Amino acid sequence: MNTFPAPVLQALSESFPSPLFSVDPSLITLLQQNTSEFAPRNVIGVFAPPDVEGVAEVIRAAGKYNFSVYPYSTGKNWGLGSKLPVADDCALLELNRLNIIREVHEDMHFAIIEPGVTQRQLSDFLKEHHPLLMLNVTGSSPDSSIIGNILERGSGFYKHRIEDLRGLEVVKADGEILRTGFWHYDRGERPVHHYKYGIGPYIDGLFSQSNLGIVTAAVVNLIPMPESMELMWCSFHSEQLVPMIDRLSKLYKQNLLHNILHIGNTTRLKITGAEEAVWSIWGAISGTKNLVNFLKEEITLHLEDIAGKIEFLTDENVDQDNHFRTLYEMYRGVPSDMFLKAMYQSVGQTIQEDELNLDTGRYGMLCCLPMLPMAGKDINDAITLLHKVCDEFGIAPAMTINPISGEYAEAVINLYFDRSSKDATDNAHRCNAALHEQMFADGFRFYRIDVENMNTITRDNSVFWKTIKDIKKALDPQGIIAPGRYGLL
Amino acid sequence: MNTFPAPVLQALSESFPSPLFSVDPSLITLLQQNTSEFAPRNVIGVFAPPDVEGVAEVIRAAGKYNFSVYPYSTGKNWGLGSKLPVADDCALLELNRLNIIREVHEDMHFAIIEPGVTQRQLSDFLKEHHPLLMLNVTGSSPDSSIIGNILERGSGFYKHRIEDLRGLEVVKADGEILRTGFWHYDRGERPVHHYKYGIGPYIDGLFSQSNLGIVTAAVVNLIPMPESMELMWCSFHSEQLVPMIDRLSKLYKQNLLHNILHIGNTTRLKITGAEEAVWSIWGAISGTKNLVNFLKEEITLHLEDIAGKIEFLTDENVDQDNHFRTLYEMYRGVPSDMFLKAMYQSVGQTIQEDELNLDTGRYGMLCCLPMLPMAGKDINDAITLLHKVCDEFGIAPAMTINPISGEYAEAVINLYFDRSSKDATDNAHRCNAALHEQMFADGFRFYRIDVENMNTITRDNSVFWKTIKDIKKALDPQGIIAPGRYGLL
Repeated sequence: MNTFPAPVLQALSESFPSPLFSVDPSLITLLQQNTSEFAPRNVIGVFAPPDVEGVAEVIRAAGKYNFSVYPYSTGKNWGLGSKLPVADDCALLELNRLNIIREVHEDMHFAIIEPGVTQRQLSDFLKEHHPLLMLNVTGSSPDSSIIGNILERGSGFYKHRIEDLRGLEVVKADGEILRTGFWHYDRGERPVHHYKYGIGPYIDGLFSQSNLGIVTAAVVNLIPMPESMELMWCSFHSEQLVPMIDRLSKLYKQNLLHNILHIGNTTRLKITGAEEAVWSIWGAISGTKNLVNFLKEEITLHLEDIAGKIEFLTDENVDQDNHFRTLYEMYRGVPSDMFLKAMYQSVGQTIQEDELNLDTGRYGMLCCLPMLPMAGKDINDAITLLHKVCDEFGIAPAMTINPISGEYAEAVINLYFDRSSKDATDNAHRCNAALHEQMFADGFRFYRIDVENMNTITRDNSVFWKTIKDIKKALDPQGIIAPGRYGLL
Repeated sequence: MNTFPAPVLQALSESFPSPLFSVDPSLITLLQQNTSEFAPRNVIGVFAPPDVEGVAEVIRAAGKYNFSVYPYSTGKNWGLGSKLPVADDCALLELNRLNIIREVHEDMHFAIIEPGVTQRQLSDFLKEHHPLLMLNVTGSSPDSSIIGNILERGSGFYKHRIEDLRGLEVVKADGEILRTGFWHYDRGERPVHHYKYGIGPYIDGLFSQSNLGIVTAAVVNLIPMPESMELMWCSFHSEQLVPMIDRLSKLYKQNLLHNILHIGNTTRLKITGAEEAVWSIWGAISGTKNLVNFLKEEITLHLEDIAGKIEFLTDENVDQDNHFRTLYEMYRGVPSDMFLKAMYQSVGQTIQEDELNLDTGRYGMLCCLPMLPMAGKDINDAITLLHKVCDEFGIAPAMTINPISGEYAEAVINLYFDRSSKDATDNAHRCNAALHEQMFADGFRFYRIDVENMNTITRDNSVFWKTIKDIKKALDPQGIIAPGRYGLL
């Protein structure tokens, strides 16, 4: 349907009085705005249920009247589509009113949260009530959803965020509520959420990067505040990239590195005044005081011939520089919009506070996100290819390489453009399409993808995607939830 | 069907000439022998395909003639059912002839192996061809299947084995071959198996503890040989259990422990001559030489007031004791049957080499496997309950508690009995049933279960199990694969 037939619209308006439901064209137009300037889809309405039962009611109505919904948490999937559905003719399903922190367990260090719970909200809550626990923050907006980012398999400053997941509550397409792990058993006095696999098939992964259900709560791992934490910072020349990557891989494998590192190029780091052809590395060294002191010496020993001076910033010596202080606090679980501001600075602008919603700001962003093997040669090849493609389009890409383990590093490549120029916008889109095309052809594989390029991931037409389609048919035979999202249409 | 109808039997015998297929009653009787003395099921035949295509042919025949198969790798699921199907009237499907090590990748440290590949086989292969890599061994038989243990979510000496998994090849019930992760894309020069999640829904977990497909190959993580490794060994009195568990949990959370520990009770450790009411801890401290030296001091500092002297055994000082040498080598990736022998010793017997197949030996074994929260109080409660139940039946349980992280510890509880005595056998079975019943009632949850108690896990009749059933219907509408295994019948 392009729009709700009149009798359906009337029935829905009765069942879901304002603000639970709207077909206001100006609201819909607003919600379609996205920083990437992806073309708007036809959207037939907007639901904003207040709780889990409300979500189930929307789903049952969708089944009854045969329409599709496109759920999002806070809608800040910036650079990958924001709130924009993959397919036309869906109703939006906002989950940001489900924003309860249901529980925080101190000893087992987890929180049970709903999709509308933001980084800032949980961080503030922990600071006040559980100062011994902290959030594995991401560099995105403090107002972004934690569940949204976990399910899209984003990465945090300490760990890959999907590995923070210990259990899910899911509203299925038939309106029933599924709980995973040991969570479906009656809960007594004993901890339930210490072990994510439960018994029987482990299915949490089914609901990440998928359209197989609507997650209404998740059990999320929190990090016990380390006894000691120091922020490591060093730089190296791009000619040293290959040995540096191989060296870091080895440090992970020998238990000297435990947390995610970030390695940023010059465009990413205009904010710090980094020179051309210089890469900077930052990350947390954490554990007991003795361990941190030991690791500082040991890491220095292994990297100093490549990296030169390695700085270790502590709560005491980090104060003088605002950026480093903010970064330091992010490793203590306090989210920040520093990296959003850095985006603007990288294109020579200063962001205004009211532009922190990228969807309405002046500068646009596109993302290309390959998961790189943690091998110097492959990462160097990826960077060479990146520059070859971007040079053709006259774009200076911002790039961060985030080693997550000794085996793989997440690459975050951002292309920025002036949204007020149609030429600049089109040029950036062509550049991003070429990047995806050529990266894929050279054997690099993506770990996340935007709504515009999403159909390209299924082009191998393999048994894998057919299997996902079979599971989709079993769990959502009417195709109610997010058609086309991470799967065959 | 209780047996194959004559025309079906003839067709199968033509399609699968000996040794690919058999209905020999003496073979079937032999394969039903199991160390736990679970009652035999009706088994209608035995397939033993030589390769993946052979597995697909069996599956297609099962679809055509409408019978079920029960796959196993080497069939050493000892204590949980061995080769015994959950339900009656299946054909056995042996996968042990699929025993190719397809690939070992040195830098990305993984192996692609088939279900028949044993611990011993891969360990020997690595020793000869890739001495810088080692297997995350388990304490079970060197001749047990690596894939079988991973899919059943067993644990290794370093890591939880399910977390060794980087991708699967699965023969589906329709005979098609599914590959997960990035594996379904054409493979070029670039590494493919550095990142297990791929893009789109992550489905590897679906095929662990399940009957949703037949795994014919897996990409399995190997451990880069640590620069240094020492075997930690210490003991403590059972009165100190609560603070010891809490202390260990803290060490994991502060990055001072990286590998699984084992904590064994006296019955488990007759082999070492441990005294009553004493628990022993063992595990590997690994990394660079400097790190290992540092960790030894630091761990000693944190544990010595409870544990007394902590021994750290090296390649040089471990030689004098045969058991410790064997244990040491297990942490260098060399599997051993030491723990199988220890089982016999714990009941006052010496095992003969030809009794290392537990299914034909004199002593029987049953398992109760709760996943405990890594909290002193809960673990102490579980042990108290264990002794209360076992005392009623006059059985001395062997128990190991294996902390896997700061949050959870796998408990391995074994009940041994003399299979030649019907009374002893019945008594052990009743004890095991009571243990499962009372552990569950007290809020403890199992991470693995035997074929006899399997139906009890679905008794909550929740949306979780209904969802598994819906997925089963989608992927295996005829119910060809292992009916009743980890799911509703």
